[in-house]
Amino acid sequence: MRIDYTNVMAEVIGERDGILREELLSFRHFVAEVHQIIQKEKNRKFYFCKLPYQDTSQVKETANWIRENFENFAVIGIGGSSLGAKMLFNSLTEFNHNKKNRPRFYLFENVDPERFRATLEEIDVEKTCFNVITKSGSTVETIANFSIIMQMLKEKLGDRYRENLVFTTDPEKGFLRKFGQEEGIKMLDIPPQIGGRFSVLSPVGLLPASVIGIDIDQLLSGAKKMDLICSIEEHVEHNPAYLIALAHYITNMRRGKTISVMMPYTEKLSSFVDWYRQLWAESLGKDGLGQTPVKAIGTVDQHSQLQLYREGIRDKIITFIQVENFPVDFRIPEELPDEISYLSGHTLGEILNKELLGTKAALIKSKVPNITITLDRIDPYNMGMLIYMYELATGFSGYLYKINPFDQPAVEEGKKFTYALLGRKGFEEKLQEFKELYREKYRIEIQ
Amino acid sequence: MRIDYTNVMAEVIGERDGILREELLSFRHFVAEVHQIIQKEKNRKFYFCKLPYQDTSQVKETANWIRENFENFAVIGIGGSSLGAKMLFNSLTEFNHNKKNRPRFYLFENVDPERFRATLEEIDVEKTCFNVITKSGSTVETIANFSIIMQMLKEKLGDRYRENLVFTTDPEKGFLRKFGQEEGIKMLDIPPQIGGRFSVLSPVGLLPASVIGIDIDQLLSGAKKMDLICSIEEHVEHNPAYLIALAHYITNMRRGKTISVMMPYTEKLSSFVDWYRQLWAESLGKDGLGQTPVKAIGTVDQHSQLQLYREGIRDKIITFIQVENFPVDFRIPEELPDEISYLSGHTLGEILNKELLGTKAALIKSKVPNITITLDRIDPYNMGMLIYMYELATGFSGYLYKINPFDQPAVEEGKKFTYALLGRKGFEEKLQEFKELYREKYRIEIQ
Repeated sequence: MRIDYTNVMAEVIGERDGILREELLSFRHFVAEVHQIIQKEKNRKFYFCKLPYQDTSQVKETANWIRENFENFAVIGIGGSSLGAKMLFNSLTEFNHNKKNRPRFYLFENVDPERFRATLEEIDVEKTCFNVITKSGSTVETIANFSIIMQMLKEKLGDRYRENLVFTTDPEKGFLRKFGQEEGIKMLDIPPQIGGRFSVLSPVGLLPASVIGIDIDQLLSGAKKMDLICSIEEHVEHNPAYLIALAHYITNMRRGKTISVMMPYTEKLSSFVDWYRQLWAESLGKDGLGQTPVKAIGTVDQHSQLQLYREGIRDKIITFIQVENFPVDFRIPEELPDEISYLSGHTLGEILNKELLGTKAALIKSKVPNITITLDRIDPYNMGMLIYMYELATGFSGYLYKINPFDQPAVEEGKKFTYALLGRKGFEEKLQEFKELYREKYRIEIQ
Repeated sequence: MRIDYTNVMAEVIGERDGILREELLSFRHFVAEVHQIIQKEKNRKFYFCKLPYQDTSQVKETANWIRENFENFAVIGIGGSSLGAKMLFNSLTEFNHNKKNRPRFYLFENVDPERFRATLEEIDVEKTCFNVITKSGSTVETIANFSIIMQMLKEKLGDRYRENLVFTTDPEKGFLRKFGQEEGIKMLDIPPQIGGRFSVLSPVGLLPASVIGIDIDQLLSGAKKMDLICSIEEHVEHNPAYLIALAHYITNMRRGKTISVMMPYTEKLSSFVDWYRQLWAESLGKDGLGQTPVKAIGTVDQHSQLQLYREGIRDKIITFIQVENFPVDFRIPEELPDEISYLSGHTLGEILNKELLGTKAALIKSKVPNITITLDRIDPYNMGMLIYMYELATGFSGYLYKINPFDQPAVEEGKKFTYALLGRKGFEEKLQEFKELYREKYRIEIQ
């Protein structure tokens, strides 16, 4: 893995948009201080740092049992309970995984009825293991989807419905834990110190990964490697997590880069960006601060967003992710008409990466700060490094912004209004508040 | 269709973030003036306004011929040449369309080798009609994908390879037109006045839509209806396109809302947002101006982005899209444990829309401006209205920002560097420029 940050530096893109080396180094003492705090907090707030070293035997055992007994494996979860598994599935299995392998992987995430039907049409519920994941044990979407699935299972299997369920939840608290205990359902623990968006390397992400055949030892090895580097190196020019955090923080707070675009040049990392979006937004979007994470995919978004990135409002820092080796490639034929003969002999993978270089050069000319993370290939080890690096960069950024990166206080309000609108007991006052707050006064209607 | 803009108004969210009614009305004369210009420009810059009235007989004939002769239909195109067809396919057919219907629909968009392989594995090229779409006739990704596909077709079919191709391109200019003429390939015209991102209601989007069974007459009827309303109503409080443009412009330039989030509460409109992202970014991202369009999906992104939207940097205006009727729905069972019994009897669709209301109420409390577009259902007529409304809003916005919304000058630079890096003749100087510009000086390497 390489992290190239040349193009965020003032010597390349100028001082209005870029960072001075001495500016970066001026954070030296601050970084050293926070580095010490993080080492001490690894058993508490930074508990995600411990996950690479966990005992995975129960996860593997459960995964093997699922692999032996089921054709399909479906996660029922949303947010931190789905984005990790989705990211691992989409980055580390083939696009046509479900056509070629068992168990197939599915996700019940949203409460979108059309999506629900479509997923249901793909599976025979009797032959499906449903992994219900929720830390709180009571997430509305997850419980709604689960309650419908449970009824279907009961209709088909009677009391044996239990065998098709695995719960991943808090070891003690919440509805799902209690219900699982009463009903005698297989359960895995989410360590209580871990929040949803930092949970991908816990059983939340590891069970699905293991079931679909991803080498979770390699995944954790990559994370360990990154932990090792970041524990030893407190110098910002050698610590990739701190460097990424500082590059984003300085460009945000001192150069007005309020948007962090992540743009992999491979569709396989599309869900990695979705995972990053939650991590960055929910951790740092507090006290009127934080950057808005934006997803883009190369080369597709060159034809959609590049005009804006180059000549629109100057509020962006871009992180490219480049992959050097693809597991397959296709070569453009030798015999082509003159006008397009310059493509002859190149492969699609080469063109992809040359387009990335061309785009970077164009952005340098427009003085748009950009970082490039290069992976030699997408594999569990590299993904483990990447995941851990971003988790640590996010945790470290909390100290830069002076906010708590591990809570999400603003999410509760909408949930309470939803409870009230669904008629949940105890939320009568909230319903009253809604009625006072919500009007539809200004509207245009088209018949 | 309803457009509710109550929650962008100062009387709801305050003057720091919201718009005063008199402020909106103060644009009256400006709007009337631009309205007159647009009516006159419909044969030139605003030619997309004419598309609803086009003769579609050639498109329908070609579509019927494809439907009768092929199992699969694949668009080879990118940006404005793919986003429209993708949006129509994803919003107006079932999620499992390809499992139930012929012809199946595929897209060769990116030059990602893994995606290329995955799509290729799905189809038998002999039984596939490939619709190559490029206005310029020479888009790198499109020509690269096409040249590989053409070789495969020739290997299987010899000279008959032509029969599996339809080109959609400029009526006179460019490589693809010339090549199609020489080889005798079926071709459809992209009207020369129309740019890629305004082309979905031309043969660029209509042929794919018609092939996959979408009622394009209804689609165009919806667009006509919107054209009629917007041609008659020049009052900003009655013209939905001008209202949407002004709400975004005022909140952007006078209230610092530099980000326009579009957040449908239905996964079917996911690709509609991708289409909007290109339209908004590439049209208005000029002269250091424009808003960055951001995609979010309800309810999923409540669990990822809502914390940031409520308590992060105050730079967003949000457009929700709500659907009232789903073609299918699922009811939560009546018998549920006490803790979750408040869900009993509700349907997934109801929960989805109540979550939207809860989220809106939470955003009102945080004074985040938001608009809601409500569709009674997703159908071709409503999609036609929505598409036309956003195209007109974008064209109109060009006058507000005083920029040309129909060009994309900043996209060329990256293309030239890419040509140079691929060794294209005539770009030797550009290669030299690249070498002087591009370095990798600051990096962290991990072995």
